[in-house]
Amino acid sequence: MRSLTILALLLGAAPAAAAPLDPTMINRIADQAMNHGEVVDTAAYLTDRIGPRLTNSPAMRAAESWTQQRFRDWGLSNVRTEGFEFGRGWSIDSSSVRMIAPRPLALRAIPIAWTPATDGVLSAPIVVAPIKREADFADWRGKLAGKIVLVSYPAPPKDATDPAFTRLSDADIARLDVYRQPVTDDEAGDGWFRALSFAKKLDAFLKSEGALAWARMSSRNGGLLHGNGYLHRAADTPALPAVEIAAEDYRRLARLAKAGEVRLEIDSRVRFDDSDSKGYNILADLPGSDAKAGYVMAGAHLDSWVAGDGAADNAAGSAVVMEAARILSALKVKPKRTIRFALWSGEEQGLYGSANYLERHLASRPANPDPAKAALSYDFKLDQYPLTRLPGYGELAGYFNIDNGSGKLRGLYAENNLAAVPMLREWLSPFASMGASTVVARPTGGTDHQFLSAIGLPAFQFIQDPLDYGSMVHHTNVDTFDHLRTEDLRQAAVVLASVLLSAANSDKPLPTMPLPTKPKLTDPFSYEDPDRLD
Amino acid sequence: MRSLTILALLLGAAPAAAAPLDPTMINRIADQAMNHGEVVDTAAYLTDRIGPRLTNSPAMRAAESWTQQRFRDWGLSNVRTEGFEFGRGWSIDSSSVRMIAPRPLALRAIPIAWTPATDGVLSAPIVVAPIKREADFADWRGKLAGKIVLVSYPAPPKDATDPAFTRLSDADIARLDVYRQPVTDDEAGDGWFRALSFAKKLDAFLKSEGALAWARMSSRNGGLLHGNGYLHRAADTPALPAVEIAAEDYRRLARLAKAGEVRLEIDSRVRFDDSDSKGYNILADLPGSDAKAGYVMAGAHLDSWVAGDGAADNAAGSAVVMEAARILSALKVKPKRTIRFALWSGEEQGLYGSANYLERHLASRPANPDPAKAALSYDFKLDQYPLTRLPGYGELAGYFNIDNGSGKLRGLYAENNLAAVPMLREWLSPFASMGASTVVARPTGGTDHQFLSAIGLPAFQFIQDPLDYGSMVHHTNVDTFDHLRTEDLRQAAVVLASVLLSAANSDKPLPTMPLPTKPKLTDPFSYEDPDRLD
Repeated sequence: MRSLTILALLLGAAPAAAAPLDPTMINRIADQAMNHGEVVDTAAYLTDRIGPRLTNSPAMRAAESWTQQRFRDWGLSNVRTEGFEFGRGWSIDSSSVRMIAPRPLALRAIPIAWTPATDGVLSAPIVVAPIKREADFADWRGKLAGKIVLVSYPAPPKDATDPAFTRLSDADIARLDVYRQPVTDDEAGDGWFRALSFAKKLDAFLKSEGALAWARMSSRNGGLLHGNGYLHRAADTPALPAVEIAAEDYRRLARLAKAGEVRLEIDSRVRFDDSDSKGYNILADLPGSDAKAGYVMAGAHLDSWVAGDGAADNAAGSAVVMEAARILSALKVKPKRTIRFALWSGEEQGLYGSANYLERHLASRPANPDPAKAALSYDFKLDQYPLTRLPGYGELAGYFNIDNGSGKLRGLYAENNLAAVPMLREWLSPFASMGASTVVARPTGGTDHQFLSAIGLPAFQFIQDPLDYGSMVHHTNVDTFDHLRTEDLRQAAVVLASVLLSAANSDKPLPTMPLPTKPKLTDPFSYEDPDRLD
Repeated sequence: MRSLTILALLLGAAPAAAAPLDPTMINRIADQAMNHGEVVDTAAYLTDRIGPRLTNSPAMRAAESWTQQRFRDWGLSNVRTEGFEFGRGWSIDSSSVRMIAPRPLALRAIPIAWTPATDGVLSAPIVVAPIKREADFADWRGKLAGKIVLVSYPAPPKDATDPAFTRLSDADIARLDVYRQPVTDDEAGDGWFRALSFAKKLDAFLKSEGALAWARMSSRNGGLLHGNGYLHRAADTPALPAVEIAAEDYRRLARLAKAGEVRLEIDSRVRFDDSDSKGYNILADLPGSDAKAGYVMAGAHLDSWVAGDGAADNAAGSAVVMEAARILSALKVKPKRTIRFALWSGEEQGLYGSANYLERHLASRPANPDPAKAALSYDFKLDQYPLTRLPGYGELAGYFNIDNGSGKLRGLYAENNLAAVPMLREWLSPFASMGASTVVARPTGGTDHQFLSAIGLPAFQFIQDPLDYGSMVHHTNVDTFDHLRTEDLRQAAVVLASVLLSAANSDKPLPTMPLPTKPKLTDPFSYEDPDRLD
């Protein structure tokens, strides 16, 4: 209710009455980032030296230690972890997939995350059995024993008629400034639930049929690989080894299988680590002077997928958050509100780290009554009410997330928080010459501000230039440091540090949104499409 | 002189007085290609089943046998090979390159063609020593012993702002219709000669310094690999194993080497085959009714590089040439002139196959007086005069080459043969609805019509839609069947078969160009740029 009042007040008061930041501080931040910056070194260490940081993997553990040490080296306070139940560690020692008939050929392939190792070299003929839903199982019953099952439809490549690398024009950004009406239906999260459930059912079906392993086709062309997999809980560990094969190689297998026997050798040397089933968020504070004023927070997820080095997703964002911390600490700022820096874990598998922060500090809601759903991610709580504020709810005065690749910051998504737009615009106004001054209403999802926005808090994500993130880099084996742009990382550190300091010093906190209660269905007259696969 | 006369006559006579092809034959050709076509099967067999066809490799030998058998199956006459001295066979059994320090990581890499195998697993630290020219050797003397030398400058990636996949618009094609004045200088071919010489000098230098192997960076991003190498003669076989490393991986190595020791393991299991040093062109004829009328010819190179399956370069062109042969044979055409089908070998290393055809049948000229150059490709004869016609010169009434990827045919490059333009336009006129009716003056190079055009013969190349050939496929490990477009292959077969039949039946032969004599230098006042590297 309080947030509603503030919303009403602020809607009538633009520009917002936020205390402007000491302008010399902006220049000192820029000087620190541009002339004394470490963001490039930080990103290089996380990617080149530590490498991919799959949640709970040995490399992620190394990153958890190293990032805490950096925060401490830079003088941050209360550097700490917060753990949450996640599942098994998993890493790839080595792997190879070779076609051995009708001709020998090394294939580009990667084990799918959290699938088990082969027991030495697994050699078997393939069967191309496109299976997309449980109803497809019947078509393949009795045909898979002793086989490596290629479960993807070998779809032909689409014409890549868009540029791989882009930056946003002013017109592109202007098109983002659209209030999106929330869409609510009683099937929310069901697609994701069905996908997770299907992964388990597919493994069980293939195992029961006597299949030896399975393979899917990469969703991208050009030999790119991903290897994403979601069965990270010990109880869910699949029975069969599985690999993702490059699209070009997969399609060749499928064509050759039309003409005769095709045999593969799969040698998947992967390793589970059950020494600690918890994932850990890393938190570090720059203390505020007014204990009652709460805190503002910047966050990015430190975990990544395993095919590349997790550079654009999201060493870039992590390094920028860390650099903002370093800069503000080096400048010995004394903000009114505490500034908190968060490096999340378990983002890639379901925003587990930020969801844990939410449930630990911000708000509670009932579990999903379906025990199968209740055991999964916070997605399956989103339609559960009532939502109840925890004591920490009112302390979080603003959250800023970075997770749209490594392109420079172009502004902020206000995430439908209309009342926040004028304040955010004012804080970004010094950065027009850096291309970062736009605030757009539109909401975004799929990363760690999402659940925070969804409980009414002022939680935002930065707009970023796409670069080659969507076309080539996202979750692939070329998510490497060289696809970052060092000048973009420095720019982002300047903008983030300044926005954080503005938010921390602002006389008025950013407006919240109403605490959600169970919404009316957007379209109460709709029916579910029986062909829907999500 | 005869050709000059014809040129003058034809320039004054447009449209050319060529006998139109029986129009029903065009429809029968289209029916054969579209409703009974085998071009897709042919391309699939060459790529999926046989795979990469490096000149003189075991797979190329298989392709030489299989293509001859297909020509025979289809009823072609005088199916034969013509051999030429080339060098060693070379193929990859398997290879792996792993970083073992500072962290273990499988790298994407490929042995460079015609480099020797490692003796088991070669393990050594790297040194990043960008070497581009002989003058750079001095900088690295005494620093390379026991090392794997990374010889490329780790250039950062460029923004990929152009679409990867394109088709030509009418405006694009119109821009190609430009007569290009020939450029003649006394340095012709010198860049290529320096590059080949430098490859040998680099190997000798690294060997003499005690380096163990070397690596270069892929020229493309996205993990794409090529592996091109040119030291295929037995006497030139390098001393050191060498690999090409994916750009992302190479740059990572170079960054890590700034901070400490980086070690690699290279296991390059490659194999030489010295059972036959000759490359072989495949020739097949559809006999003409008039023995004095000579022949027309279509050609494409059957050989490929080894990283992919040689699909767009040039199983596509080979399959289209073969399909035109099949169609015309199936239709039992009785052309006035013989129609010859040529599948060249040794194209990728220096147009060796088509150059051999030229020297065997068409024209002779003195050897390059420099013995080192004389031993290399026909490029180093191009500035040697006088050029003397062989008896077969006058028999070749037209040559049509396909080697611009797998995109559909959009017309013909007249290769500066102005007089041929009207005849070619007439022959293409039925194919406007297929997008293939344009004739442009502009010359093209780099493939097997080049030397034929250069001795004055009417030798042309087809314009083709680029698709993703230049951006992603050319010489890479994704030059695979799925990057072809089957509908484009069928279209090309129709157009090629029809043009060949028109040329074979034409009352008048295509005009030749004057037999070249030593040209005046285009710019007699120029000096050589001392920074020139070619």
